[in-house]
Amino acid sequence: MTDGAEAAFDQHGAQLLSAIDSSDGERMAELANEMPAPDFAEFVREHSLDVTEKLLAYLPIEQRARAIGYFGLEAQQELALNMAEPMLAELLSHMNADERADLFNLLDDSLKARVMRLMARNEREDLRLLASYASGTAGALMTSDYVAVPARSTVAQAFDIIRATAPSAETVYDIYCIDHMGRLVGTVSLRRLMLARKEGRLEKVMTTDLVTATVDEHQEEVADQIARYDLLALPIIDLGGRLVGIVTYDDAMDVAEMEATEDMHRGASVQPMEQNLSSASLFAVYKSRVVWLVLLVFGNIFSGAGIAHFEDTIAAEVALVFFLPLLIGSGGNAGSQSATLIIRGLATREVRSADWLKLFGREVLIAAALGLTMAVAIAPIGAIRGGEVIALIVGMTMVTVVVFGSLAGLTLPFLLRRVGWDPATASAPLVTTLIDACGVLIYFGIATWLLDLPAAL
Amino acid sequence: MTDGAEAAFDQHGAQLLSAIDSSDGERMAELANEMPAPDFAEFVREHSLDVTEKLLAYLPIEQRARAIGYFGLEAQQELALNMAEPMLAELLSHMNADERADLFNLLDDSLKARVMRLMARNEREDLRLLASYASGTAGALMTSDYVAVPARSTVAQAFDIIRATAPSAETVYDIYCIDHMGRLVGTVSLRRLMLARKEGRLEKVMTTDLVTATVDEHQEEVADQIARYDLLALPIIDLGGRLVGIVTYDDAMDVAEMEATEDMHRGASVQPMEQNLSSASLFAVYKSRVVWLVLLVFGNIFSGAGIAHFEDTIAAEVALVFFLPLLIGSGGNAGSQSATLIIRGLATREVRSADWLKLFGREVLIAAALGLTMAVAIAPIGAIRGGEVIALIVGMTMVTVVVFGSLAGLTLPFLLRRVGWDPATASAPLVTTLIDACGVLIYFGIATWLLDLPAAL
Repeated sequence: MTDGAEAAFDQHGAQLLSAIDSSDGERMAELANEMPAPDFAEFVREHSLDVTEKLLAYLPIEQRARAIGYFGLEAQQELALNMAEPMLAELLSHMNADERADLFNLLDDSLKARVMRLMARNEREDLRLLASYASGTAGALMTSDYVAVPARSTVAQAFDIIRATAPSAETVYDIYCIDHMGRLVGTVSLRRLMLARKEGRLEKVMTTDLVTATVDEHQEEVADQIARYDLLALPIIDLGGRLVGIVTYDDAMDVAEMEATEDMHRGASVQPMEQNLSSASLFAVYKSRVVWLVLLVFGNIFSGAGIAHFEDTIAAEVALVFFLPLLIGSGGNAGSQSATLIIRGLATREVRSADWLKLFGREVLIAAALGLTMAVAIAPIGAIRGGEVIALIVGMTMVTVVVFGSLAGLTLPFLLRRVGWDPATASAPLVTTLIDACGVLIYFGIATWLLDLPAAL
Repeated sequence: MTDGAEAAFDQHGAQLLSAIDSSDGERMAELANEMPAPDFAEFVREHSLDVTEKLLAYLPIEQRARAIGYFGLEAQQELALNMAEPMLAELLSHMNADERADLFNLLDDSLKARVMRLMARNEREDLRLLASYASGTAGALMTSDYVAVPARSTVAQAFDIIRATAPSAETVYDIYCIDHMGRLVGTVSLRRLMLARKEGRLEKVMTTDLVTATVDEHQEEVADQIARYDLLALPIIDLGGRLVGIVTYDDAMDVAEMEATEDMHRGASVQPMEQNLSSASLFAVYKSRVVWLVLLVFGNIFSGAGIAHFEDTIAAEVALVFFLPLLIGSGGNAGSQSATLIIRGLATREVRSADWLKLFGREVLIAAALGLTMAVAIAPIGAIRGGEVIALIVGMTMVTVVVFGSLAGLTLPFLLRRVGWDPATASAPLVTTLIDACGVLIYFGIATWLLDLPAAL
């Protein structure tokens, strides 16, 4: 929200709270009705369950169902468990098919069965289908509220079907043309249909160049297709080619945001969390962070062992210790940069696996230029603190660790992808830890050599 | 793309290349016609300008204009400069209004004037308007290809206008209702219009709860609004409330992706780049990375100075050096985690500025638990390498630096936002560098105290 929108939102919220305090039901309903569903959901998220239940009771069922779709899943679950079963069944009936399935999946088996019994037959079957797909797949993301029309219909007949479906469909702007087996054979936009002759058949105006996904495809692929081809919705088919659902662009936007969040978290060695930061339990946050932190502690032991190994070199020239953090830090920083550039490039498909060699070649030049710049910046301080030899050691190490770090950072995401891991696992902390250990060896190796000390082997 | 789609794309590309090699114009046109515009653009991006020009020459002008809209701006500019001016003017006329303005803005002033003269009057005025907004604003992102209908029209009249505008409008699914001054007074979806009585007036069916943005709003705010309210398009108004354009959801998706990329790059201390990684010049990549790397070198001098300052402590107990990298590294890692969680939370609006105190309180507990876990993991190694006192020093330091690092990492993004900087500037390398320096002081401070050494002051 803009600052202005945020202020309006806060003001609206304050009015709503005072209506709740004075138990003014009419005013509550009026204010809640004026708020767009996402704003209402945010207001509710910021207040207690009591407030939520009071408020929801004053909303008509359609609006209540719509608002609940915007809540976090945890909040939805809590509300559902506090509700009488017939009420819950009615609420589910009024929710969008995809949101309904998500909420349904959070209930325990016996409650599922009892609620199912209270629902209409076609809603029940629809729910059974949508709730059956594994989370994170196209099947779990899709909705069954779409407009399908037999390809042999006339344009006029299609309009009748569209009008009849319009109140419940998620979108009526892409029409899906199916054959007698329910297989998707074409699509046509409402825009095109409006310009077509009423007596013409759909077969004549529909596009048969189809972009589709199957139910088991990963949601990230689905979101990518929608973004790449600027689709309003992507039709989802089963293994027999039958149309079973659509994923709309707004769900694709949510998936893209979620996937970017996951990648950013991975980039800081945080494992994906189910809930958002403010509402996640303390233990959930702890759990998402602890594994990598402990692993990295053990990774850092190598750096320590490296330093201990070169004890004699350090004793011979204590000034070396002064430059240790900045030299190994620089390698880690340059490595984090190149790793992040590659991870993001792979995620947005700007970089493909086959590009590694070309990018490696470019990186050699870029990293050498970076290393030289940094060496020039730091060498004078080396000369002042330790004399010319130290300046030379520091400068040479800087170039070497920056080039080494950059190339390692660039290569690691490609390697991880090769073995089937998420490239984003090449987090800044992991890259830094790996490069730190090598940086210690490079630094003291060069120092031992240039200071003409006995090699510590 | 899925692997299957990628294979199909590669195969299609190979066929296209062989058609180009044998200069088979008909086959080229046929193959290029079969490819969706984004795929065609990707194919072109991977090949030389020569190939591109040969190919484009065989496409009908509408398709050529559409494909070029998917090219990177740099490639568009290069093509434009190699084109005869009448050809360029024709191409611009066939491009979408928003893409046309973006390309036009890359031409030099005299070429702009000459091309303008070759265009039709209303296109010229449209172009002048759209090209006048600063990049990164709603004005620069919007298109003027929308459907506006006087609010006093009947539904039947509105349909006539929609049908007439349909071939060129970016979307006909949201209809904008304006008054006699051109001010936006309502919107109505095509879906709703289809269900309305033909003789009714738009005023009666339109929504007057408007979500809009002004021309000077930042594109990130625009994309946020579209995602938050699940809009197909956001109407953009000028300061007088007049409707001047719309931003469609597909452009919002591109902006969201770009902004996420920027944040990720910032998170690794890489300044935003104009082009993507593979096509950016070596110098552009160097420039985006060098500033922070050099700044961080100087930041790391503090850690070095800290170590030098405690020379006597180190000399008294050399085993301490062994644990130095893992202790200060752990503080930096924990800090990167909490900084990244906050940065992403602020970007997705899950976290608001007012949440700092609440999150700070939670973080104290989480970080203490993390620090204790890590202390328990490392203390035995401390005992083995240096005895009980070292184990105690290492354990105490671990808890302290992890708590300190986490709290500093959590607070920094809020502080940066407070002073008007992008919170994403609190990159992992910056956080690590700041915390490293403090970690050195904490570690050797605790060691000096527990080893009962004279304080190095």
